[in-house]
Amino acid sequence: MPGPAPIAAVRWDGRAVVLVDQTRLPHEEVELRCTTVAELADAIRRLVVRGAPALGLAGAYGMALAAATGADLGEAAALLAGTRPTAVNLGDAVHRAHLAALATPDGPLEAALAAADALSAEDAAAASAMAVLGAALLPEGARVLTHCNTGALVSAGCGTAFGVVAEAYRTGRLAHLWVDETRPLLQGARLTTWEAARLGIPHTLLADNAAGSLLAAGAVDAVLVGADRVCADGTVANKVGTYPLAVLARVHDVPFYVVAPTTTVDPSAVDGSAVEIEQRDASEVTSYAGQAVAPPGTPAYNPAFDLTPARLVTALVTERGVLAPVTADALGRLRRPVAVTSDGSTGAGPQ
Amino acid sequence: MPGPAPIAAVRWDGRAVVLVDQTRLPHEEVELRCTTVAELADAIRRLVVRGAPALGLAGAYGMALAAATGADLGEAAALLAGTRPTAVNLGDAVHRAHLAALATPDGPLEAALAAADALSAEDAAAASAMAVLGAALLPEGARVLTHCNTGALVSAGCGTAFGVVAEAYRTGRLAHLWVDETRPLLQGARLTTWEAARLGIPHTLLADNAAGSLLAAGAVDAVLVGADRVCADGTVANKVGTYPLAVLARVHDVPFYVVAPTTTVDPSAVDGSAVEIEQRDASEVTSYAGQAVAPPGTPAYNPAFDLTPARLVTALVTERGVLAPVTADALGRLRRPVAVTSDGSTGAGPQ
Repeated sequence: MPGPAPIAAVRWDGRAVVLVDQTRLPHEEVELRCTTVAELADAIRRLVVRGAPALGLAGAYGMALAAATGADLGEAAALLAGTRPTAVNLGDAVHRAHLAALATPDGPLEAALAAADALSAEDAAAASAMAVLGAALLPEGARVLTHCNTGALVSAGCGTAFGVVAEAYRTGRLAHLWVDETRPLLQGARLTTWEAARLGIPHTLLADNAAGSLLAAGAVDAVLVGADRVCADGTVANKVGTYPLAVLARVHDVPFYVVAPTTTVDPSAVDGSAVEIEQRDASEVTSYAGQAVAPPGTPAYNPAFDLTPARLVTALVTERGVLAPVTADALGRLRRPVAVTSDGSTGAGPQ
Repeated sequence: MPGPAPIAAVRWDGRAVVLVDQTRLPHEEVELRCTTVAELADAIRRLVVRGAPALGLAGAYGMALAAATGADLGEAAALLAGTRPTAVNLGDAVHRAHLAALATPDGPLEAALAAADALSAEDAAAASAMAVLGAALLPEGARVLTHCNTGALVSAGCGTAFGVVAEAYRTGRLAHLWVDETRPLLQGARLTTWEAARLGIPHTLLADNAAGSLLAAGAVDAVLVGADRVCADGTVANKVGTYPLAVLARVHDVPFYVVAPTTTVDPSAVDGSAVEIEQRDASEVTSYAGQAVAPPGTPAYNPAFDLTPARLVTALVTERGVLAPVTADALGRLRRPVAVTSDGSTGAGPQ
């Protein structure tokens, strides 16, 4: 029985970067075609595309777009990398495609595209590997709680935490998926429900607030989330609301798993203090879809991410293996320096 | 300098129960006039009026309305008390006014009204007492985080937790109020911001999810919430999201205060298992301010309340004193049996 058509969150159509417009889901399934780097940067800022691995893909293909349109590569790289500060994948992927283009002055477009395509293939492979490794951690009949959206919309493959969920469902291990709505931008309510419904995964939506009573009731066997950046000490920067979930999971002795490819690990971020937490506009909290909720002028605190210390993470699932516990040493062994060759492919660095 | 006009969340205009329509705030300040018990019951279910003490007032005045309209008192009492199951105040107040009316067959309207008026006066006095007792617990320059709405909209007086905040602000102790938006119905975003702005209290709104990073950043000196029911063992039933906040406050060593009049203490509820947690319609979660968010047909888990164990409550502030710690013994001493006389006033029971 064939499944639904695969989702191509980020793709290159020969002249433009084409994105599934995630701001229009679940009501409309439409793509946004970005023909200039400025359009793409705006789309990234507006969260037309989001999620750490997909941000990396958008950045890498964005450098191909820069080359294709004759834009200044340095300016394009700075513009794209500066759109969202927290996910390490974006800056790293822009840098990788930029280096590839610079190293091939007679064919920067082809070089940037090759780098982006290589990143995409690596991301898809990593997603598949994480899905298998993560699903093996779950008990039979698992009831999983997840936060934000971490499926095919954030990846060239099946995603991170949601990829594990989908694999567990495919192999009969998953009984139910609890979906945090994920305020303020409701990625869980809008996107994860949509992905779950596409795959036929039984799921129930909840206000983030209700996760406490759900955990207290013993209705959750594991919490699975993705990551936007994993620091050298194992601190996890992820969608705001992740930290409270990790605390609650620990209090109720429920495993808390972070699923993230090694591209999300940032050895240069010593700890959480090195991560810039993006503060977004107050209007995301004071209104929704253009409709005001709070009185006009109400100020809002709106961090897009929060920090979860490594000690609250039961295990970190990466494509290179499962780290449990998550320690600086284990992370150091996991991600060795990676050399980027001129064709954009990666090779293992000095061992 | 005169403050804003007082809010009369629930009042009797001689023929009808008049409610501030809380579903229309903050955009419209309008009242809803309920001329039949059925209209009032519908208004209570739709949260036109809400919050434990105000539910009590609506129930008591609702019995006066039943008497005024010649409705069957027993049926009216059952209808009103059954609209919302979690707050103990509603059923108790309906019962009190019902008993008063039954005890005065030649003047049931006057008796029910007297009972409701007495309840209202007691509630206003309790709110003032709690405000003073609670404010004294806060440090100078306090930065307080609160959840849901607990001000004049829920009370004949200044409210519960928000009454403490207002008193602390009036006396110069409060530096800032952090307001949880309180999904799914956004009582914080819609109502607490409105009440804070009316009083000039400096405040900032946040998605409930963001409370974790706020507490982790050391930006909160105390968490203040109300209660819908306090069990004999000190378990607090309150707006969903209270329990996660209590856990986070404990983890960050921030005092967690519950502010509730003794009418909210239910000695017949031995522990949390005796409290019916109201489950509300999925549409409150699958839509936002009337606008669909999730795909059509998405199921939702939507408990209106959760349970916080007494050990996470630093102190319970009542009009009869502050309990710290909150124990079954201390609660037992606090609320003695209360005899209701035929005029609806209360007298201390046997000591």
